[in-house]
This record gives sequence, structure tokens and C-alpha cells, in this order.
Amino acid sequence: MARVNDHYLKLQSRYLFSRIAEKTNAYQKMNPDKRIIRFGIGDTTQPLPSSIIAAFHKGVDEMGNTTTFRGYGPEQGYSFLRELIAKFDFQDRDADIIPDEIFISDGTKCDIGNILDIFGKNTIGITDPAYPVYVDTNVMAGNTGSMQANGQYAGLVYLLANESNGFCPQPPEQQLDIVYLCSPNNPTGVTMSREILSDWIQYALEHRSVILFDAAYERYIQDETLPHSIYEIPEAKKVAIEFRSFSKSAGFTGTRCAFTIVPKELKGVDSSGKFISLHDLWNRRHSTKFNGVSYPVQCAAAATYTDEGKKELSQLIEYYRYNVKLIKDRLQKIGFRFWGGNNSPYIWVKTPSNFSSWEFFDYLLNNLQIVITPGAGFGAAGEDYFRITGFGLHKDTEIAVKRLEEWNWSSLF
Amino acid sequence: MARVNDHYLKLQSRYLFSRIAEKTNAYQKMNPDKRIIRFGIGDTTQPLPSSIIAAFHKGVDEMGNTTTFRGYGPEQGYSFLRELIAKFDFQDRDADIIPDEIFISDGTKCDIGNILDIFGKNTIGITDPAYPVYVDTNVMAGNTGSMQANGQYAGLVYLLANESNGFCPQPPEQQLDIVYLCSPNNPTGVTMSREILSDWIQYALEHRSVILFDAAYERYIQDETLPHSIYEIPEAKKVAIEFRSFSKSAGFTGTRCAFTIVPKELKGVDSSGKFISLHDLWNRRHSTKFNGVSYPVQCAAAATYTDEGKKELSQLIEYYRYNVKLIKDRLQKIGFRFWGGNNSPYIWVKTPSNFSSWEFFDYLLNNLQIVITPGAGFGAAGEDYFRITGFGLHKDTEIAVKRLEEWNWSSLF
Repeated sequence: MARVNDHYLKLQSRYLFSRIAEKTNAYQKMNPDKRIIRFGIGDTTQPLPSSIIAAFHKGVDEMGNTTTFRGYGPEQGYSFLRELIAKFDFQDRDADIIPDEIFISDGTKCDIGNILDIFGKNTIGITDPAYPVYVDTNVMAGNTGSMQANGQYAGLVYLLANESNGFCPQPPEQQLDIVYLCSPNNPTGVTMSREILSDWIQYALEHRSVILFDAAYERYIQDETLPHSIYEIPEAKKVAIEFRSFSKSAGFTGTRCAFTIVPKELKGVDSSGKFISLHDLWNRRHSTKFNGVSYPVQCAAAATYTDEGKKELSQLIEYYRYNVKLIKDRLQKIGFRFWGGNNSPYIWVKTPSNFSSWEFFDYLLNNLQIVITPGAGFGAAGEDYFRITGFGLHKDTEIAVKRLEEWNWSSLF
Repeated sequence: MARVNDHYLKLQSRYLFSRIAEKTNAYQKMNPDKRIIRFGIGDTTQPLPSSIIAAFHKGVDEMGNTTTFRGYGPEQGYSFLRELIAKFDFQDRDADIIPDEIFISDGTKCDIGNILDIFGKNTIGITDPAYPVYVDTNVMAGNTGSMQANGQYAGLVYLLANESNGFCPQPPEQQLDIVYLCSPNNPTGVTMSREILSDWIQYALEHRSVILFDAAYERYIQDETLPHSIYEIPEAKKVAIEFRSFSKSAGFTGTRCAFTIVPKELKGVDSSGKFISLHDLWNRRHSTKFNGVSYPVQCAAAATYTDEGKKELSQLIEYYRYNVKLIKDRLQKIGFRFWGGNNSPYIWVKTPSNFSSWEFFDYLLNNLQIVITPGAGFGAAGEDYFRITGFGLHKDTEIAVKRLEEWNWSSLF
């Protein structure tokens, strides 16, 4: 008999965004004439900029010609892309990352899930709230016990992100072997300062921990004092793996390209206490269970680093920042309390009047036909919050803001 | 301290194809004027056919336009592609597969590695020789002990494929919970008959085993009596997962698209003996750790099912079959013994004169500047064999065949 991975059976419910999609589709089916504005999944809406489209086409053309055709590429990604990333995303910011430390992949979601393959049994710290993939993939890997009455899985260490710590948990007293940090944060929109990141690196050096640093939203940072990469902080290469994506910076959510940095000096220990290169392990995993990103997609990603590409990316970010500002201004006028949105596409909002987050999801869907992301989907600590994104079209965001403006909130505030 | 996955440390050496590339590059560096003909990795050389390039471009154009832009797609793949696959690859061959059972991915290598995520501890049968990813991913997942003196990992059941069984192992007496089968076979080029596949399905039904059926090369089947899919055999949906790829059928090795079938009626058991849908588990895995294949790539894959696409794919297969015939004819004239190559792009050749497979790799590289794949890379049972592929360019294959023709083999035969 083929035995299944029992750990999957501990998972509590459908993946958050599938549940949102189901509820939204059900409402639309019952109300076919209503125009729903979707701020749920955090998907981008703007097309790929024209210089990136041109490079994408050029890559496709090369695949159609015998002399320029590309078969299997390097599993780790083409040098032309890894070199651009090393220079512009890291070395130009005084972060000493070399192309060999960069692994191109088809998505940060994949890498963040797959990275657990190279680790053994560890004490794992995850912020609450957090991107649900961190928790779910640990459940699937057998790193947790069952879900408890408080909505948390046994065996994980939850690092509470709340109003009192500005949604930026400090390093704890206890030993953590692996810690997930995300900045700018999904879902709270809060960005970690150089000081707090330094505290975490100091902690990791002392505890020989590995920080899994999710920087998928770094392009949204406007404040020049905030780090874009964890490697801008001294000694981070000894303790951190960083995840980056073209999804939210260049509109690649449907095009699929991301990258992960595993520094060569980063080490874990085996069961005999011997130090083992995590770079070597990830390289083995990547070579054995992955076959590289589509060549034309890598060409498109490389185009984001040209002068024209950089200019177009800035315009893209500005497009979404306009939405964020529009939403924030309206939320403030109504009287909502919220965080994030300055260096991030996300705004984290307290539900009014003791609504639970799924209750308020239903309230907004049914009354205003606006889809938000319920905070509970990001963890027990998100119960009284919801996430709203700036990734919509201007016209949709303007409609949503108008609906928020015209709604009578007097019973809730 | 962050503990690593100790199982990775059991892996014996670099991934086969990396080692071939290293040896080949080292030779080229020492002999820059020599023209090396590469039949090593089994990579395709022909460009994407023009109707597929046109669809690829159209997909890219849609990404550059606000009204047609696609962000996150369904993790399982777009319906337009899943429906074409269900109809043309399965229903038209009397295999009752529906679109919901099809998961589009970026590669069979990924899926074959990742599928182990949903399984627990099992007795696992793998043919020897076999595609090295089957064994390596089981080592990484902790399903084996250490490498033994005989070149096999403890804890795996090796199913010997040799001359006496025509390189098609029969089901064994003992209990296997999971079995890897590949047809047309990589590396032997041998294709399983309807009868032997039926025997395996009967075995799996009796033992409640799951067959992982790798059909990445099914397009090369010419003999009308041979099944292209395991689901052409009655009751296979109760026992088999099938892996398919556009890599070798449509030249997608560098474009990246594949698909995996997990039938809804396929079940495993949990530790309490309860039956669990493997379709549900894989769907959870796919939704949580994967984010879909690039939209333009799915458009390109869909174009392989148009009348024009099908015609072009047939021409592509014919192109490579010409090479296979050329090589086979020459090998026969020299006096090599070989298998496969009729319904497959691969020919499996006995090394002459007691050469080990890596020795003969060096012999061919040094003397004829031809790169083949040493059989030992596919398992201990491949020690006296090598694999040669039809995926080269005609002109390269013709040069290689001429070198084979002109070489003095008298000392070896």
C-alpha cells in the first residue's frame, strides 16, 4: 500500500487565496450584474512595460531559429541575468553578492516552499501574521504538530507582530534555528529598519540560526534609510538566505521569474555537528529537481535592468503607489486605523467595531462589492485586521474609494 | 543551530549531466581546435516550429496590453491547455482523463522530484538502469540508506533491466508500494508493450501500489500496438500517476512546459489506514508550492495541438528519427550490440571489449570527439552500456557517424 504524507492532513483548510476566489465567484454568480473590485490576492494589473515586452519577443524569436535556439539552460539561470542582478540589486547597494550565489527560479513561492528540503529538524520561528506559505510548507514538511485551539500549529514558534511592537517582532530570548522575516512585510506593509535587521543578524550569529528573508516587495521602498536587501547589513551573508521576485516589481505574476540568494559562506550543521555549505545543498536541490527558467522569460527579466527598463519599472511602481495613497487617504477620512503603505503596496487595516476579518470580508463583498484579504488568512494574530492592496487598476481603485466614501459608516465608527 | 537534511550527504557525486559537461568542457579547453559532437544530455537542437513561435509571440503581446494582461493564473494551468491535452493526448486514445486531473508544470524533472512530497514511508521499486532523478530524489527525501559497495542505495528495491528480460522488468514477488516505470525508456530506448503494462497494473491493483509512469518520450512511438499512455490500459486510473512533457516532443527543453496526471480515483493510505485522495494532496502541494507556468509558454504549448502544430511536431520527430536511423545503421555495421531506437530517441549500446561505461566515454571523447552518456550514470546495471541520442543536428550526427565509420575498430571487435 502506498502510504501518504500524513502531515498534509494537518492542514486546516484550503489555501487562503483559493478560499477568497471561491467566495468571490459564488457572490458574482448570485449577483451577475454587480461589478466586483478585487483587492484580494495582491495580483498586479498593469501590463509588462514595452522594453520588457521587446526583450521577451526577441527571446522567443531566438527559440525559433536553429542558430540561436536554446535547449536546456543552466539550472541556476543564465549568467547574463545573474550578473545583472549581482551588480544592480546588490553590489550597487554595497551588498557583496556574486552571480554564483544567485539562483534564478520561476517564483518566490516555489523557492520559499522548496528551501525546507535542505533542512532537517529545527526550531522554527514565523511571524504572526505572515504569508501563509511559510506556515503551510512547514506543516507539509512535518515540522509542526497539529493545529491547536488558539489557531496555531504545535511545534512552531510564533513571533507576534502587533501594534505594540509596530508589527516588527524583536528577536526572542529562546533559541530559533530558522526564522522567517519579510520586509516590506506581507501582509502588514511594515518595513524593517536597518537597526532591527541588525538586531536579528546579531541574534542569528549568536544562535547560529538561518534567516529566511523574503524581500519580494523591496522595490516599493521609498525611504532611502531603509535597506532593500538583508545583505546591506554587515555579516548577513553568514546567516541569511534572501528571496526576490520580479512579480511585484515588474508585473511578472503571470510571467514567472524570481531569484534566491544563498551565500557561499552560509553554513548549517549535520547530525554529527559538522558544518555543511547550504549553497552546495541548494545547488544540488536546484540541479536535481529543477531545470531552469524559460529562456525568453530570463531575457524579459534581464531587460528590467536596462536604463529604459528601470525607468518603466519606476513608472509601474508609481502607478500602484497612486492607488495606495488614494486608499490610505480615504481610510483615514472614514476613521479606519491602518499601517504600512509607505514603502509597500500593502495597507494593513484594523476591522471596525469588533468585526472578525472574515466577517468584514463578507461585509465589504456584500455591501460594497470590494474584495479584501481577511487578516485571519495570515495567522491567528491577523484576526481583527484585513489587507488591502494598491495593485488594482486606477479606475477600479477609484470606484472602490468612491464606494467607501459614499457608504454610511456611522453604525461602525 | 540550523540543522541540514542529512540525507543529502548520502548522495554520491555530482548530478550525472553536470559531470559530463565538466569532462567535456575540460577536454575542449585542452583541445580548443577540436569539434566535439555532443550526444550527452539528450537535449534537443531543433528550433520551436513556426506555428508555436507565433502563438508564443501572441501570448507575449497579450502580456503587454492592459486589457489582455494576465497576472497569476490557475496554479494547475489554464483550462484552454488542460482541455486540449485531455482531448488529444488521452480521450482520443480511449484514455478517460478529464482536464481537472491534469496539472501543468514547468518540467517533468520537477514533478517527478516533487511528487515524493505527498508520500510517506514506502517500499520503493526503481528499475536499474533508470533516469537518475528517480533515485537521487528518493535519497534526498530520506527514503534510502547509504550507498553500498555494489553501487546501490540500501532500502531501495532495484528492478534489474537487462538483456535477459529485454530491459523490461516483470513485477516482482515482493511488495512494492511505489514503482517507477518509464516507457519509452530513458536510457534504454525500450518501450513497454500493452501486455507487460497490464501485468504491472494487475500487480499494483493487488498490492495497492502506485505506479509513477514517466511517458516523456511517448511521441516517439511509431508502432501502433504500443500504448502512449498508461491510462490506455483498463483500471490504470486506480494505480498510476503519469508524467508528460513538451520538451522532447515539441523542443521545449529551454521553454519549459510539462504536465502530470493524477486521477481523481487514485488513493493512498494514511497511517490509520484511511484512504486519501492523491489528487487532493497533489493539488494542495501544487497550490501551495507552485504558482503556475508562464502564460505565454502555455499559449505556445497549446499551439502544439492545432492541425498545423501537429504537422510541425511530426516533422520534428521525423528529423530526430533520421538521426537515430543513421546512428543505428552505423553501429550495426561496426558490430555494436544495441537496443531501443525504434520507438524512442535513445539507443542503448553495449560497450565493446569490456570497457566500463566511463572508460568508453573517455575513449570516444578523446579519439572521436563524440560525447555519449555513460550507462553507469543511470545505475550500477548500466555499467557496461552507453546511451546515444538522436537529438543532434543532422550535420553533427552525420559527422559523428562518419567518424565512427572511419575509426579503426579492429582492436575492439
